[in-house]
Order: sequence, then C-alpha cells, then structure tokens
Amino acid sequence: MTTEAESARAPRAAMLVIGDEILSGRIQDLNAHHLAQRMSALGIVLAEIRVVPDDHATIVAAVRTLSAAVDYVFTSGGIGPTHDDITADAVAAAFETPIDVRADARAILEAYYAGRPASGGINAARLRMARIPEGARLIENPVSGAPGFVLANVHVMAGVPEIFRAMLAGLEPGLAGGPPIRSHGFEVMMPEGEIAAPLGALAEAHPAVSIGCYPFYRDRPGARVVLRSADAAALADAAEAVRRRLETLLDASDIREVPPSD
Amino acid sequence: MTTEAESARAPRAAMLVIGDEILSGRIQDLNAHHLAQRMSALGIVLAEIRVVPDDHATIVAAVRTLSAAVDYVFTSGGIGPTHDDITADAVAAAFETPIDVRADARAILEAYYAGRPASGGINAARLRMARIPEGARLIENPVSGAPGFVLANVHVMAGVPEIFRAMLAGLEPGLAGGPPIRSHGFEVMMPEGEIAAPLGALAEAHPAVSIGCYPFYRDRPGARVVLRSADAAALADAAEAVRRRLETLLDASDIREVPPSD
Repeated sequence: MTTEAESARAPRAAMLVIGDEILSGRIQDLNAHHLAQRMSALGIVLAEIRVVPDDHATIVAAVRTLSAAVDYVFTSGGIGPTHDDITADAVAAAFETPIDVRADARAILEAYYAGRPASGGINAARLRMARIPEGARLIENPVSGAPGFVLANVHVMAGVPEIFRAMLAGLEPGLAGGPPIRSHGFEVMMPEGEIAAPLGALAEAHPAVSIGCYPFYRDRPGARVVLRSADAAALADAAEAVRRRLETLLDASDIREVPPSD
Repeated sequence: MTTEAESARAPRAAMLVIGDEILSGRIQDLNAHHLAQRMSALGIVLAEIRVVPDDHATIVAAVRTLSAAVDYVFTSGGIGPTHDDITADAVAAAFETPIDVRADARAILEAYYAGRPASGGINAARLRMARIPEGARLIENPVSGAPGFVLANVHVMAGVPEIFRAMLAGLEPGLAGGPPIRSHGFEVMMPEGEIAAPLGALAEAHPAVSIGCYPFYRDRPGARVVLRSADAAALADAAEAVRRRLETLLDASDIREVPPSD
C-alpha cells in the first residue's frame, strides 16, 4: 500500500493510454509498464493507468479528470496521420484551447520529410501531425519527426513504443521528482498464507515502508515480499526485520533476497 | 473507432486492475490483455481498463463508477490472504453490503487445505479469503481453492494470471455476449502517412466497420490496417475495398493480408 509519508512528499502522475487496438486485445500496451518503471526511478508516484477507446468525448473527460487529480498526465497513442488519430484535438478540447497546424511543428515535419525523399514527402494527412494546441510546448521526436506536445500538465506522446520511450527520455530531465522510491524484495518458497500474519504485523510496525506480498507458482507455491520506500534508512530497517522474521519460518535456501539496485 | 452499430448491439465491459505492484512497474499486468482478447471473442466491447493502487477509497470509487457505466466489471488482484489484500472489503463497501467469513467459502478453503497437509492448513490469514459479501455468488478457483465472487455486475477475481484465466474461463458460459467481433487485417510496408487519406475515405464509406491504422518499424516504416465489425458481410465488403485500394498503392509483395480467423 502507498504509505502516507510517500504520497505526501512525491509528485503524482497518471497514464492515459488511447486506442481501440489495446481494448480489442489486438495488441498489448507496453508503454504504461515502461512509464511505471521510469516514474518509480524518478520518485514520482504513478497513481492511475487508464485505457480508453478512440472516442472524442471519452478522451476529453479522461484528460480533464486525470489532469485535475495529479501533477503529471502522460498520454500515448492517437497522434499519427490517419483518421483515427484524434488525441491532439481531444486534448485541446479538454482545455478549450484552439488547435490548428502550427508553423513550428510544420517546419519540423517539412525538414524531416525533405531529408527522406523516398518517404513520399509531406502531404495533407501528414500535416495533421502538425496540429498543435495554442501555447503548447513541443516534445521532440528523434525517431520519426512528428512532435508530441505538453499542454498544461498533459504530455501527449506517440503510441509506438520506440517513440514513446524516446519522447519520455527527452522529457525526464524537466520533470520534478521526489526522492527515488527504492524497493527491497524477498522471494520465499512458501505459500503466502503462511507468512501473511507476520507480514501484517511487520507492515504495522514500519509505517514509512509499503510492504506488499504477491503469490506465484514455481513447482510449488511461493511469494514475493516487496518493501518500498523513499526513505532509504527506514527501508533498510524494515528489510532487516523482514529477513529475520522469514529466517524463523523458512530454511535459508528457500529465501532469495533482492536488495535495492542503487 | 468503435462504430455506433457495434456499440448499440454489444454488451460493454470494464476491467479494474488493483495493485501497487503494477503501478510501481515491478510487474507487468497480463490480465487486462487476456480479458480484452476474450471479450472480443465473446462479442463484448471492452470499454475501459483502469489500474488503481491498493487503496480502499480509490477502489470503492472506481468500482462504483465502472459498475454504473458498463454491463460487466471484472477486477483482478487483492483477494489473497495478506494485509494488502483489501479488494473484497472495498467491493462490499462500494455496494454498502455487509461482508464476513462465509460458511460456503470457508468450507471450500477447509476442504482445499485438508487435502494438502504440507501447505500448513487453514489459519487466520487464509480465512480472510473466505470473506465474501452477503448475497454474492462464488466464482470457482480450480487452481488454488480460494474463490472469487460476483456482486451485482462486478466479478472479483485473483491477480495471479493462471488463476485469473481459470476463473474467467469458468464464467464465460454465463456471460451474455453479442455477435463476435471479427477483424480483418493488412500489413503494408509503407508509412501510414502515405495511406492515411485513402483509408479515411474508406472509413467514411463503410460506417458499419471500424478501420484503424497502427504504424510499426521493421527496417522500414510499415502500418497495420485493421478492420473490425460484428457484421461479417460488411467486414468482407470493406476488406475487399481496402485490398483493392492498397493494390493501387503498393506492390503485392508489400501487402500481407490477415483474414478473419473464423
């Protein structure tokens, strides 16, 4: 569970994945998981992931709700050249901001396609990708030219994973994070029902640390115990207590410790 | 885009994934993608996927919102024996329904653990998994005993993918679906900006079919064109029109057709 100490300090983010192709099961979204990992590394709490269809009113409503609820919203999908790419207009509508082909974005696209004559050059469909709301800041796209944009606290990015990642990497230095949230894990070859009671007591005794327990099966039932905190000392303290308790319950060979990576 | 013909006929579903471990990026959710594929096969439109943390008030609010918005809500995660498993109580609270250890669920757990003496047997933590809201219908768990439940239109299931899938498979015969939504795809080795205009025109000419276009990179830029419809004749018609149009734009060797699977 998210501890109160953590949420009081750290900025909060939400991810809005836009695309019928995810909801139909045709493709699996990979961007939310990548964003989740990057937010943890930056000390930003990812508070919600929402996947919605390519529907104007639904996107407008989700952008408004999430933008009001968190510090940073990230969207993926729906900013390409085809008729089903409606994200830019929906985000503009969410903030009642005019949107049209903007000269700076158009110049980026023209330069990109001028350097790639085999691509067929700029055309009306591709000019859709230069539709940017008034006052929005562009997000560089080092992969395929067409920029994303930031309007208010909403970061509008591509759905293609390579482009999403490149755009996010470019944004990261400008995001105000909290202290990075570190994790300390234990994999134990014991059903979680056997360690639930001691873990509950340990969670209560270490309120600055979030302690989660996730079952798995590998020939026999096991559980991952994961401690998370932005407070490195409190994390080390709680991890030590959990390790000692586990050692009273299991053979050392049935405990695998995963200490913090940094 | 979801066509109006499709949404008027088909029941709608939403997925609520519950778990800090997804939002922290520690593990990638697999259940939403599986549910999305199954819903398409059953002719049920998955209208939203939402991932929320292990937080009582947040789960209660999400359950209420989604339950009111769609025909079927499916949740995954948070029904195990540990202190961070709070889903059952939150779903009960969302419907203001009393919840306690229920005799039928307790009997299932007792029988399960009695048959597995090495598991350590029933204990207080495991009895948490017999907490079922009044009036809820149990969902069988053939993998690890502890049942899920259905309260109103909310189907509460385990987060472990093997168990989630087994529970869903058991539920499927009881779900009222629409006509299955079929898809017909084309992979073209051409940037989507080059086919955007003709696709837009084709989408307008075939309103009973949803036509999406999704870019990818494989040495050079390509795009997946996906047609979807519950109306098999309209789908075949539109696919024929798209194929003919693509053949005027590309060499046949740069078009790969993916016809409906059934």
